[in-house]
This record gives sequence, structure tokens and C-alpha cells, in this order.
Amino acid sequence: MLAVTILGNNSAVPAFNRHPTSQVVTQDGTNYLVDCGEGTQIQLINYKIRRSKISHIFISHLHGDHYFGLVGLINTLSLLSHQQPLHVFGPSPLREIIEMQLRVADTKICYPLHIYHINEAATLLDNDKLTVKCFPTNHRIECYGFSFQQKKRPRKLLPEKAKEYEIPSSFYERLCKGEDYIKKDGSIVTNDLVTETADPGAKYAFCADTKYDESILPHIQGFDMIYHETTYLDNLRERAILRFHSTTKQAAEIAQKAGVKKLLIGHFSSKYDTLEEFEREAREVFENTELAREGVCYKV
Amino acid sequence: MLAVTILGNNSAVPAFNRHPTSQVVTQDGTNYLVDCGEGTQIQLINYKIRRSKISHIFISHLHGDHYFGLVGLINTLSLLSHQQPLHVFGPSPLREIIEMQLRVADTKICYPLHIYHINEAATLLDNDKLTVKCFPTNHRIECYGFSFQQKKRPRKLLPEKAKEYEIPSSFYERLCKGEDYIKKDGSIVTNDLVTETADPGAKYAFCADTKYDESILPHIQGFDMIYHETTYLDNLRERAILRFHSTTKQAAEIAQKAGVKKLLIGHFSSKYDTLEEFEREAREVFENTELAREGVCYKV
Repeated sequence: MLAVTILGNNSAVPAFNRHPTSQVVTQDGTNYLVDCGEGTQIQLINYKIRRSKISHIFISHLHGDHYFGLVGLINTLSLLSHQQPLHVFGPSPLREIIEMQLRVADTKICYPLHIYHINEAATLLDNDKLTVKCFPTNHRIECYGFSFQQKKRPRKLLPEKAKEYEIPSSFYERLCKGEDYIKKDGSIVTNDLVTETADPGAKYAFCADTKYDESILPHIQGFDMIYHETTYLDNLRERAILRFHSTTKQAAEIAQKAGVKKLLIGHFSSKYDTLEEFEREAREVFENTELAREGVCYKV
Repeated sequence: MLAVTILGNNSAVPAFNRHPTSQVVTQDGTNYLVDCGEGTQIQLINYKIRRSKISHIFISHLHGDHYFGLVGLINTLSLLSHQQPLHVFGPSPLREIIEMQLRVADTKICYPLHIYHINEAATLLDNDKLTVKCFPTNHRIECYGFSFQQKKRPRKLLPEKAKEYEIPSSFYERLCKGEDYIKKDGSIVTNDLVTETADPGAKYAFCADTKYDESILPHIQGFDMIYHETTYLDNLRERAILRFHSTTKQAAEIAQKAGVKKLLIGHFSSKYDTLEEFEREAREVFENTELAREGVCYKV
């Protein structure tokens, strides 16, 4: 199962008990952290998300509300005697910033820490369960969104059918991979007689900070869920453009044009003490919109 | 009135709802921030301490739990259109770290920001109300404590006495400054007949992170209140020495030898889920000890 837990849904200045951007994408017990605003390690404790299960951290851009909590988390994991490698991806000069702060503190990180710079659309991770890619967004400084695509699952065996066709159980694994079975008499049991299609892998994208820009569409087309920023309500389109941010209806338009199933909205300006209007406005354009609420886990 | 509000009383790793080091020294509506661990700006909001009233920030050393919240606070003040100058003091290369992070974010700070490096015992601030000095402590990396000394108040006028000696009210201000009054007949009304001593200015010191070291005594001798770290209970003296920290009884011994009136203890290791034993142990050596509790304002 692919799921996303929101740790922070506010824009630059913390307010109204809303925190700067961070979220955890979870699959099969592994945590992938996306952005790491100040206080993320405290939010991880608050929501009982195991820091030790974080294997990768993806930083969209170097505005403070998206990464000022990173060096503290790296530090804390070391103090907690973390063992597993940690892979961090973000724009240059993220590595130099982190290394400088570790150096002046005379801190040796006790686990393998790898910081990679990203500078264009690329595949960052590709294992047997998941592919993570980054894609550029249109922000005031270099900025990237991240897509998480589960690998397609094996086909589901229909055990009674397999027995009916007298297929030995030693061949079941190959059936799940899609192979046909050839009987001793040479006749063929085609795969679709004894298996059925599994759910396709779920697809989620975090679209980072961005002004309205359709160039991200190819990277999120047909996704199950996307998170798109809505720093402002739609009456502040001018301000959104000036500041390289998006409004509710712009985010909803992107969701609609990308043909996604669900839209999560967040990165709310500290101007707003309540959020209901964000949801209402976005739903005028794209019905299946939900506010990204801190502490809530959304299944993709 | 001089007072200290504790924003964070824990050592390196946040735990048990205790935060990394930060405290606010307040005098006459001005806030002086001492250390600024991650999340300090959130703690300032939680405890309703006005960020805009912070004029000076003093950073003891460049371990993350003492300054990782600084760049976020500097950033936030700018986003809130702060106007007044902000003076930040800390060891090198604090300025370079902050400037690098502002530069990569393409952030222009909208108020006058001055970051000064400290590298020895020195007077950092000296105005008509307060003197702030730094003094080196004995930690794994370069580290400083800070002392806050209120200026001695003017003498208190005894109005009835002044009338009795027929001193004109135009001379009262000079009486408060300690002058004698010479009557027309040449006779002298000595100052102590018509005024009394005001309270001496209060004195507070934050002794930062440090192993037990008596070399700090001259900087805190006779102070009204000091904050001294007690990372460990006294059965972990060996570990305290290895890590350049102090135990309960060591902090209490320093308080006793310095002849201070009151000792606040803090910087508790995340090993400990409760704190009562810290207070009990320290009081065995120095009775007037109190736990530095987050959100509590201690009058000096």
C-alpha cells in the first residue's frame, strides 16, 4: 500500500498550529520523507512515525520552509545510533550546507549518509517495488516535484481454476508472472484462464512549490493522487504569479488536465486562519479535492 | 525587572515534549534571545512571546541543538516585515552559515541584520539599562556563556525628608544621582539624609554547555540567578566528563562556589523521561535549585 502522511501544510511562516512543508510517503514499512521544514523531527515524534524507517529524503528546493529541519534530523538519527544508509536528494548546494554545519559542530555521522544533487528531470530510485522520479516545477528558485510509482503487482492466481487445469503448484509462481502453461499433451492453458490482473501500482506525485505551469502535466498524467500547492485563494492570482505560487483553482485545473483521481491541497499562506474556503474553491473546478491536514494519512 | 522564560530545556535530541535549548531574557519590554534550537520560533508562538521585540540573539556554540532554529527565525522576521535592527552574536562561522542559506534561497532580509563573531570574553552590549558579557566555557567545541547585569538603579528620593530640608524639587533628579545639596547658608545636606539606596541591578548568567570548570566563577560571582546545564544525574560523572557536560551535583557546586542566590538547571539528556531526581540531587548540594521548566518565566 502506498500512503502519504502530512507533517506540515503551511507556507513559509508557521502559524495557527500549522507547520512548514513535510510529508511522509510510506510503502511496505519504508518511509520516504518529502521536504523537511523546521520542526519535522518533532512532527515525526508527534505522529509516531518511526524516524529509523526513513531511507530516503527528497528536498524540493532550498527555501527554508522546505529544508531547515533536515540538518537537525540527520543529526538526531546519528545521536540515536541509526545504522541504515540515508539517501538525501535535493538541489545544489544542499550537500555543502549540510556538510558545513556538521563540520563546524565537529559531528561525525555514524551511519552512511549520501547527499545527491538533482538538476533535471531524472529517476532517483528504482527498486522492485517503487520508482521515484523528480521533475522541475516553476518556482522563484530551482525547484522539483517528486513522483512515486509503485511497480505493477504480479497477477493474482485463481487456485481453483489452476487445479481444474491440473497445473502443478510448482508452476504457480510462473503463472503469476504471466506465463502460459503447456500441458504434457502439448495443449496450452493460456494465462488469463487461471489468473486475473492485479491492481496496477498506485501513483502519487508531490508537485512542490510552483506557479501554474502545464509543463508538469506529463509527469503526473493519470496519477491516483497528487499534492499541489494552493498558497492563496483564487482572488489573489496576481500575488500568486508574482511569488511563483498557485491558487486553489489553478491547482484544481492542473488536477483536471492531468486526469488524476484525487487532489490534495496544501502550503497555505499564513494570512488564512481557516482553510474550508480553500477546499470549497478548488472543488468548484475539481470535485475530488481534499485539504492536506497535518497528522492525517491519505491512502493513494 | 529582569526575567528569563525557558523555551527549551532538553539536550541534543528532542524528547518527552522537551525542546532543544533556547530562553528569553526580558527587561523592560525588550527580549534578548539566548540560543535558538530548532523549533524556537514555534515555542515563541506557543508562549506568546513577541518575536518583534527581540533585539539581540546570543548563540553559545554551533552544536545544532543550540542554533538550528536561528536561520528560520531570521527568515520569519523578514517575512513578517520586521523593521528594527537585529543583532546576533555567536562563534565563527555563524555568519557564513546564515549568509549561505539566505543566498541560496535568494532571500533579502528586509531589516538591518548584524551578525558578530565572538572569540573571547567580552562586553557585547552596554546601554543605560543593561550590560551583556560573554565568557568562555569548557565544551567540546568553542562555547560561551552570557551574563546579563542590570545597571544599578538611581537612589530613591525620600520626598518628606527632602521637603523638611527645604530642597527645591528642581534638584531632586540630582539627589537621585547621589549628589549632596548645599543650602544658601552654605550648610550641606548629605545625600543619605534625603535618599535611600535603590535595589542593585539584578544579575543573571546563562552558563551554556560546559563540563565542570571553576574558571567560570569570576564571571558569575554573587549573581542573583544562574542557569547551569545538568545533562546527567550524578552517577554518570564519567560520561559527563567524556562529553564535556555536567551533572546535577557539579552544577550545584558551581552555584555554591559562586555564591549565587538561585540555580536553574536544564539541558537534560533524552535518557530521562522524568526530571524530579535532577532537582533532588542538586538540592543536596545547593538548596535553592529549581528545574528550568519550559514556558515558565523566572524572575531574577
